[in-house]
Amino acid sequence: MPSMILPALAALALPAPQADDADLRVAQLRDAALEDDYAYAITEAITTELGPRLAGTAEEARARKWAVTTLTRMGFKNVRDEPFPLKTWVRGVERAMVVGENSQPLVLTALGNSGATPAAGLTGEVVFFPTLDDLKDAPDGSLAGKIAFVSHAMTRTQDGSQYGYYGAVRRQGPAIAAAKGAAAILIRSVGTDSHRMPHAGSTVFPEGTAPIPAAALAVPDADQLERLVGRGAPVRVALTLTPRIVGTQNSGNVVAEVPGRDPAAGIVVVACHLDSWDLGTGAIDDASGCGIVAAAAKRIMDAGRPRRTIRVLWAGSEEVGVFGGKAYFDAHKGDNHVLAAESDFGADRIWRLDTNFAPANKPLADRLAAALAPLGISAGRDPAGGGADVSALVSAGVAGVDLQQDGTRYFDLHHTPDDTLDKVDPAQMRQNVAAWTAMLAVVADAPEAISATK
Amino acid sequence: MPSMILPALAALALPAPQADDADLRVAQLRDAALEDDYAYAITEAITTELGPRLAGTAEEARARKWAVTTLTRMGFKNVRDEPFPLKTWVRGVERAMVVGENSQPLVLTALGNSGATPAAGLTGEVVFFPTLDDLKDAPDGSLAGKIAFVSHAMTRTQDGSQYGYYGAVRRQGPAIAAAKGAAAILIRSVGTDSHRMPHAGSTVFPEGTAPIPAAALAVPDADQLERLVGRGAPVRVALTLTPRIVGTQNSGNVVAEVPGRDPAAGIVVVACHLDSWDLGTGAIDDASGCGIVAAAAKRIMDAGRPRRTIRVLWAGSEEVGVFGGKAYFDAHKGDNHVLAAESDFGADRIWRLDTNFAPANKPLADRLAAALAPLGISAGRDPAGGGADVSALVSAGVAGVDLQQDGTRYFDLHHTPDDTLDKVDPAQMRQNVAAWTAMLAVVADAPEAISATK
Ligand SMILES: [Zn+2]
Ligand SMILES: [Zn+2]
Repeated sequence: MPSMILPALAALALPAPQADDADLRVAQLRDAALEDDYAYAITEAITTELGPRLAGTAEEARARKWAVTTLTRMGFKNVRDEPFPLKTWVRGVERAMVVGENSQPLVLTALGNSGATPAAGLTGEVVFFPTLDDLKDAPDGSLAGKIAFVSHAMTRTQDGSQYGYYGAVRRQGPAIAAAKGAAAILIRSVGTDSHRMPHAGSTVFPEGTAPIPAAALAVPDADQLERLVGRGAPVRVALTLTPRIVGTQNSGNVVAEVPGRDPAAGIVVVACHLDSWDLGTGAIDDASGCGIVAAAAKRIMDAGRPRRTIRVLWAGSEEVGVFGGKAYFDAHKGDNHVLAAESDFGADRIWRLDTNFAPANKPLADRLAAALAPLGISAGRDPAGGGADVSALVSAGVAGVDLQQDGTRYFDLHHTPDDTLDKVDPAQMRQNVAAWTAMLAVVADAPEAISATK
Repeated sequence: MPSMILPALAALALPAPQADDADLRVAQLRDAALEDDYAYAITEAITTELGPRLAGTAEEARARKWAVTTLTRMGFKNVRDEPFPLKTWVRGVERAMVVGENSQPLVLTALGNSGATPAAGLTGEVVFFPTLDDLKDAPDGSLAGKIAFVSHAMTRTQDGSQYGYYGAVRRQGPAIAAAKGAAAILIRSVGTDSHRMPHAGSTVFPEGTAPIPAAALAVPDADQLERLVGRGAPVRVALTLTPRIVGTQNSGNVVAEVPGRDPAAGIVVVACHLDSWDLGTGAIDDASGCGIVAAAAKRIMDAGRPRRTIRVLWAGSEEVGVFGGKAYFDAHKGDNHVLAAESDFGADRIWRLDTNFAPANKPLADRLAAALAPLGISAGRDPAGGGADVSALVSAGVAGVDLQQDGTRYFDLHHTPDDTLDKVDPAQMRQNVAAWTAMLAVVADAPEAISATK
């Protein structure tokens, strides 16, 4: 290097040995995490020993107890279950049958918060709507006594972004059909597979709208019902759904910490949700997320005390309305959070990094991107939202990081009976752990303050 | 061509113009069938309008009636339903739950001929056997009051040949467990998928062995139960299965014909089975086979009367024990059958031709191979068996042709709820129709006699 430019470089070069040490340490932690076994072991245990963990049920309570024991054994500090009350909905019988000349069963599942049919079921003529907009256009009262069938079809994307638009049929469709007097509503599952696997998920009936029976047909069954309707003759379906509210039960968030060296440097919270839908064992949604964030936090912990406290949040009741995230925000909004992130999109590889950092944190964003690049991850342009359980924090101004997972096959499995351990690819899961470990190594030890963009 | 060898060629060359005309006609029929719509339309109608068609039920009876109407409308002659009595087994409730510390539901389905548990279920400790041989080795009486669990695992092959060996766990496992005093048996589904889709199918309890409750776990559930057993503590399962025999009902074979010009030239029978398991709509097993053979026969019929009669057999009760094939053989073994073939392995492309022709029929085998080669089909070395519903004919000495379909994904779907129309690829189905059309064009008009090897 020519000596004449040494003075100019000197100011920049001075911290370089330290920076290089930090970068090297991040790289070593990252690469060691490519051999991680913690995340898969946690996911295996949650799905095998606990199984389905519907929010508010005894199964979720058992899972929280297991989580406190496990995270304590792993060496985390301040491990606790933070309970909160939850009006708890549970599934009952679910059965549907085309009646008449083409009589045959259909595979479906009740949506969360669905109303119930009489125990003996109800029978109604099917009124077909290709899309949610078509349902919205139906005249008021036109569905009295009828079963609305909305066959809004989602397609496959890597970023899963269609869930927003196409998921509306599940979230809002039942309330719209109820307002128009429908006796019940069937929707095409919000999913990208073609298996006899209905996709569960919550729907919302606003105050004042009495819940009607609402269910998702498996995709092949929605195809079948479309074909039968297409024959031209009226199609009648006999439907029995007997879900019920079992009163107010306890749900809860499990929290564990890696205490930081510098209490004033604030808290980095990494989240997942421990509850799951009841049809599968919640492997990709979201035992794997809990395995990934806990594994990464443990790897940082075992490498020496970080500057900032890392708080692991295994939220409860995410699936039924992000009640765990809300409870966490209410209880902890006064804590000194500096960054929030969540793993809740399966266990397939991370391909993109999004942040919402203030411009002053560009050097931090650059170090983060550099640390992740060797894993095949590049920076995207979406502002990070943090993920469901920490979105309230991010909305309130906490910086967020989104480590975007490949969602190509996520909605094949999402909320179905098929969400089981065999769907988790250990190699891709390790790439996740490496990315989360690198991210935590960068942000938990970053010397600068971390702020979100305004 | 040097003139000096013309005399030697002349004897061979003399029939050539005729042969070329015949070959050309076969090629034209074959290639036109690549645009076929009949097979898919039939498959679509069977699966959509009829749905599941369990042997001996009202649904199978409805299907036979539909079949007679449809085949008559298509222009076939002598269309009739040939009924026979069937002791009819139907599914009931099916529910399984691991009880105790790791309580969770398991997905399973009763095997055909399974016995029933008490209505309230039974609970037993699971005794794990990795393979059927391990079950066979269990000491007599060692399973008293226990639930045997045999996790014999099939793998994927193109020719589906593993179904013979690995299917034994379903066919024989329950009787073996019963003989050793087991209260019930659970097997890993005989399937190659990893979905929460149990694979149904018949089991056999010999005279004198009282049926015990017998069910197939979905593959992920077998994995799960293996992991739970692997924890070391005793695993108990609560099982409710309430299938029952609903007495002797009618099943039947539907038969239709393309009458030949030369009654003395005999009958070529092409078969499929119309009944299906009750969990899916029997698309690949075997509505598609019925579509393929009927489409090919219709294409030959529409091109002019063939020399030999083509008989289309849509058999009943194949799934529950090939009772339709047996009834057909008993009723028709005196008919002048010269060749038999069946389409019952899905709708994916045909890749191999097997025959059992006598050596004298080598020219016929060669013409058949030449007619199929442009479709990507080459001759194999297995002796043709003809397929389940015509195997009695072939065993009795009738020549057989096997148009072997690609079974790579067949056992992902076989006997599961997932056997639905969306699994049929119309392009591959057309290749099947082209192959069957070419085969029929060759054999139905072949001038020579057709004999099986001894
Ligand atoms: Zn989730
Ligand atoms: Zn079959």
